[in-house]
Amino acid sequence: MTHSPLQAQTLRLPPVKSTADLALEASLRHKIDHKTKPLGALGRLESLALQLGLIQRQETISFNQPQMVVFAADHGIAAEGVSAFPQAVTVQMVGNMLAGGAAINVFARQHGFALQVVDAGVAANLPAHPQLLQRKIAMGTNNLCKEPAMSRAQAEAALTAGMEIVQALPGNVIAFGEMGIANTSAAALLLARLIGISVEEATGRGTGLNDQQLLHKQTVLTRALVLHPATEPLDVMTELAALGGFEIAMMAGAMLQAASERRVVLVDGFIASTAALIAQTLVPHVQHYMVFCHRSAERGHTLLLAHLKAKPLLELDLRLGEGTGALLAWPLVQSAASFFNEMASFDSAGISQKEGA
Amino acid sequence: MTHSPLQAQTLRLPPVKSTADLALEASLRHKIDHKTKPLGALGRLESLALQLGLIQRQETISFNQPQMVVFAADHGIAAEGVSAFPQAVTVQMVGNMLAGGAAINVFARQHGFALQVVDAGVAANLPAHPQLLQRKIAMGTNNLCKEPAMSRAQAEAALTAGMEIVQALPGNVIAFGEMGIANTSAAALLLARLIGISVEEATGRGTGLNDQQLLHKQTVLTRALVLHPATEPLDVMTELAALGGFEIAMMAGAMLQAASERRVVLVDGFIASTAALIAQTLVPHVQHYMVFCHRSAERGHTLLLAHLKAKPLLELDLRLGEGTGALLAWPLVQSAASFFNEMASFDSAGISQKEGA
Repeated sequence: MTHSPLQAQTLRLPPVKSTADLALEASLRHKIDHKTKPLGALGRLESLALQLGLIQRQETISFNQPQMVVFAADHGIAAEGVSAFPQAVTVQMVGNMLAGGAAINVFARQHGFALQVVDAGVAANLPAHPQLLQRKIAMGTNNLCKEPAMSRAQAEAALTAGMEIVQALPGNVIAFGEMGIANTSAAALLLARLIGISVEEATGRGTGLNDQQLLHKQTVLTRALVLHPATEPLDVMTELAALGGFEIAMMAGAMLQAASERRVVLVDGFIASTAALIAQTLVPHVQHYMVFCHRSAERGHTLLLAHLKAKPLLELDLRLGEGTGALLAWPLVQSAASFFNEMASFDSAGISQKEGA
Repeated sequence: MTHSPLQAQTLRLPPVKSTADLALEASLRHKIDHKTKPLGALGRLESLALQLGLIQRQETISFNQPQMVVFAADHGIAAEGVSAFPQAVTVQMVGNMLAGGAAINVFARQHGFALQVVDAGVAANLPAHPQLLQRKIAMGTNNLCKEPAMSRAQAEAALTAGMEIVQALPGNVIAFGEMGIANTSAAALLLARLIGISVEEATGRGTGLNDQQLLHKQTVLTRALVLHPATEPLDVMTELAALGGFEIAMMAGAMLQAASERRVVLVDGFIASTAALIAQTLVPHVQHYMVFCHRSAERGHTLLLAHLKAKPLLELDLRLGEGTGALLAWPLVQSAASFFNEMASFDSAGISQKEGA
């Protein structure tokens, strides 16, 4: 290990409660089914409203101070030429976000999200900025083609930092996104290992590899998996340390904390969903709080979503990350709440019900 | 014909210009491709931004005073028991919309759309209301299982009324929706006739038919198609008169007018897309101005969208109509504009481009 100043510690994960509540669910379904519309006619918005109602346990669903948190980090495996962009783009894009020029800034402004960028392990010293949270674990992970990406202590420190970040944030909705050149490689490896799919299935073009570059990426990742044989029984923290990234680990911890506080967790695309998988493997109930926002154009994402039995709200062929898919889906989450809160019922509006109903 | 007070007239359709402009398209693509993101990474939002740029021909895409127009009418074919709800629900739902309690009201409030409801031919006299436009062609269409749904003069009057409605509206975006018990039957028949699919393919469960009721609906619609043999060559106005609905015809005219004024046309689900098909058959360039907002759960909609080579923005298993899908998709249209207008370029942000690019 080139950098592991951290002592190993006992990882304490926050308690996450199931949202299951049969009586509440029946009451929510009754309210949804008696709105002035045919049964089920609002489709996916109806199941979303039910989920939100179970999370919030209030008469009306309400949101306040929504937060967008972008976790940024670098990846030693970038040295193997697995990304279309040079590693320097991570720090450049962090600068772009702090200057307000990235896609995520545009959508955060559009939807009224406060935006925080977390330095989870960017391979450069970043100047202080009001929107930058300095939680650097190291100057990027190790090259996992040669050694574990991080130490166990670093993985635990990243998870813990994620929890602490959320503890300090206001609001009852948090959207999770990321930036990190080569992080689709880390995510693909974690997926291959944790849900048992092949490197070929898990690996996509990231930010725009051509056919030859994609083959190279797959060859590199296959070699990496051989270097780090699977733990038996599978130990998610060991796999995360061997194959992961600081932004993925930190995001997983942050998601766990958000769920433990009954906040709505908006999950972006491929990388954020991989963090969601880590969190869900550690504490399964965390998924009750997650809204999967879009299906990425990245290959492994569809298999991951199927594994989680999650159907995302949007399919727009996005492959940008940052959290953009989460914010693009946000108005649909608001719509689920607003139809639930505001629509008239058949009784209140004096509308005839379905014949024979 | 039971009601045709109208004289046949020469229908004048508004001129609709193609938005094709190779030089402008190249300039728009250049701007989109130099935003700080991998090429194409915003997926469908990028083609949408291009379309909006071609419609508006401005340096920045801008929207003002967006309008939601819901066209309501009744259908004589409701007497054949093709809908799960009684015909009275049309007028009841119009009342619900004017009272602010329907789903479309909720979403119009959420997104700042002015809402107008048009009485295109509801089978009841409606009291005056500031949000109600009285353009009733008749007290519902005839039962097309016995005679043409409307006269040619009525069909033309409906199209013309649609044009006049849009002429009087402000704003550069119009969302189109509808309400009318049994209007999925009219739409299915128009589809079967105009795009050459079978009644079985075109016909779905509408507001919630069970298997037996669906079979009945298909039997009724098959009989209706036999009663009204296809015109040869196909004459869309004759088919519209025989098989259509007042709200469908009026919406088609309204879409043509909106496109002729270079307004953005937001197309809701199955019924609105059938109106879009009518408009596009009359004046093909109208489609350049159309944003198809969602894929309905109604069976024929997927085939219609494929016929139009249109890919909708949302797939949320909606089957409500009213324009709900159009308004749910609206924030994505805004996002396409906002990334186009506001995101930094690689040059302005000092970001390294793709290696080898």
